[in-house]
Amino acid sequence: MATLYTLDQIRQVVRTMDFSEDIEKGFIAYSNGEVVVPPVGELIFEDPPGDTHIKYGYIKGDDSYVIKIASGFYENVKINLPSGSGLMLVFSQKTGELKTILLDEGYLTNVRTAVAGEIVARYMAPDSVSAIGVFGTGTMARMQVEILKSVTDCKRVIVWGRSETSLKAYKDDMESVGYDVQTTLDSIEVTASCNLIIMTTPATSPLIDVMQIMPGTHFTAIGSDTALKQELDTRIFDLADIVVADSLSQCRERGDIYKALVAGDLKIEKVKELGAAIKTGQRIRQSVEQVTVADLTGVAVQDVQVAKAVSRALDAVSGIQ
Amino acid sequence: MATLYTLDQIRQVVRTMDFSEDIEKGFIAYSNGEVVVPPVGELIFEDPPGDTHIKYGYIKGDDSYVIKIASGFYENVKINLPSGSGLMLVFSQKTGELKTILLDEGYLTNVRTAVAGEIVARYMAPDSVSAIGVFGTGTMARMQVEILKSVTDCKRVIVWGRSETSLKAYKDDMESVGYDVQTTLDSIEVTASCNLIIMTTPATSPLIDVMQIMPGTHFTAIGSDTALKQELDTRIFDLADIVVADSLSQCRERGDIYKALVAGDLKIEKVKELGAAIKTGQRIRQSVEQVTVADLTGVAVQDVQVAKAVSRALDAVSGIQ
Repeated sequence: MATLYTLDQIRQVVRTMDFSEDIEKGFIAYSNGEVVVPPVGELIFEDPPGDTHIKYGYIKGDDSYVIKIASGFYENVKINLPSGSGLMLVFSQKTGELKTILLDEGYLTNVRTAVAGEIVARYMAPDSVSAIGVFGTGTMARMQVEILKSVTDCKRVIVWGRSETSLKAYKDDMESVGYDVQTTLDSIEVTASCNLIIMTTPATSPLIDVMQIMPGTHFTAIGSDTALKQELDTRIFDLADIVVADSLSQCRERGDIYKALVAGDLKIEKVKELGAAIKTGQRIRQSVEQVTVADLTGVAVQDVQVAKAVSRALDAVSGIQ
Repeated sequence: MATLYTLDQIRQVVRTMDFSEDIEKGFIAYSNGEVVVPPVGELIFEDPPGDTHIKYGYIKGDDSYVIKIASGFYENVKINLPSGSGLMLVFSQKTGELKTILLDEGYLTNVRTAVAGEIVARYMAPDSVSAIGVFGTGTMARMQVEILKSVTDCKRVIVWGRSETSLKAYKDDMESVGYDVQTTLDSIEVTASCNLIIMTTPATSPLIDVMQIMPGTHFTAIGSDTALKQELDTRIFDLADIVVADSLSQCRERGDIYKALVAGDLKIEKVKELGAAIKTGQRIRQSVEQVTVADLTGVAVQDVQVAKAVSRALDAVSGIQ
């Protein structure tokens, strides 16, 4: 029978794990055309407003396939419930049997997103990070910074937000885990001092103008994952020396790259797909001066890889073969 | 946290339940346009061959929504595993939270299919059933006959199959639960004596010719649920006085009605949708002499209704609010 693991169990095992190799392999398989990812399933609710997405797929010839269900009900906050919830299901690709139920409540989606940011930073960020810039003060703004400890020793963070309260909370939380955090309401303070900048907001208009960009800066754009959201001035993609997308097909339809394509500031031929770009193991950045941008919209193969790794680790802890 | 119920627990509670009212309401809501059912999600596997389908939806304004996952891996028999497996997930439509995991392994799909057969028999079968005819000797051939005890007292069954071994097993099993079973390899023996006939085979060419049809017969066609499968001569739909489909949109693309439409023996205007036909509570059959056909391809609202009812009943047994 299927084994069920709770969020507490999942959090405990994830703390001990490093997913970057699994997720790198996933991106490479994806770019090699070895991954089956059907269109996302969707349910929309009106009263109260909410949505549920079903993402699913598998790597050909692998042992498992994965179905992820994630919902967002944004009025839950009124009744003191988290807005997001969800689970991941791991099935055998050999028999169809359900093997593992991961009641992760959306946590593993955050983990796999953070790991993608870690991977692009490893391949694209400057060797010497002056300071880590962060736009946004939420969960991903924290997870991205913490996961970068595998890429850089830099502990200096400059965080931009719209609310003093959120900035204060972010500073307190991140300083308690060893970072030196400067907060600001002015994006120039970030772009002037940081050469590794992480975008994690739900903004729908640019937070950074092309005129602010310093040579040698790397941007990881995570917040914009729909056709409406946008964090970067589209002209940054014209200026950039290297542009990478987690999925070429998705970036044609959503995210900052989509906006730049529509604006005519970027041609799709300039965009490299992450899995193809890292296949050789060579760094993507070629010089200190280059401006580089990675646009991450989230690919189901990340869910597949993280769910497999977590269920394997939990089974090992539980003594399940 | 979500509650998980196993197949044993599900079977135990289902024995005490009657789903016909819930599923009737589901069909009526479906025909009234009150049900949201997105396209079915699908994963296809090649080595070993298999498929997984994700069906999901909800009745507008209801408390719950349901996602069903069902797989078929047909080489499992070689390793002594059932070919089908799956589960149903019940979520809150108010908060998105996962409430119940039903590890039914495909059992509840059989239950909801059997109940649809019970409903059409109640509205369409002759008042006086001479004998129940059954094509096929599998699970559905058994469940259909047993569920008809709520519609008719008739215990006489004539069953058609291709294999003497399967027919013998069917006869033994059904006689042990109180039926008087006659087996045959000749379909004429069924059509000559039975006026309530259930089709439950995976046939891809007609098992019954229009010339065999006796006045006053009702057919429930369950086996054909794809564009390839067919159990009834398409001309039966021309002869029939009343034709009912569980879903007009699905029957345009699959099942015996689809075959009859393609053959030009049936116009879609003649087909009534089940939920619309039973809305008033009036019987669909209007006379003893009428030939009637119901074509059931399976609608996600049946899954929604059965999963909700079963999870409610199991929660009550377990003392969960």
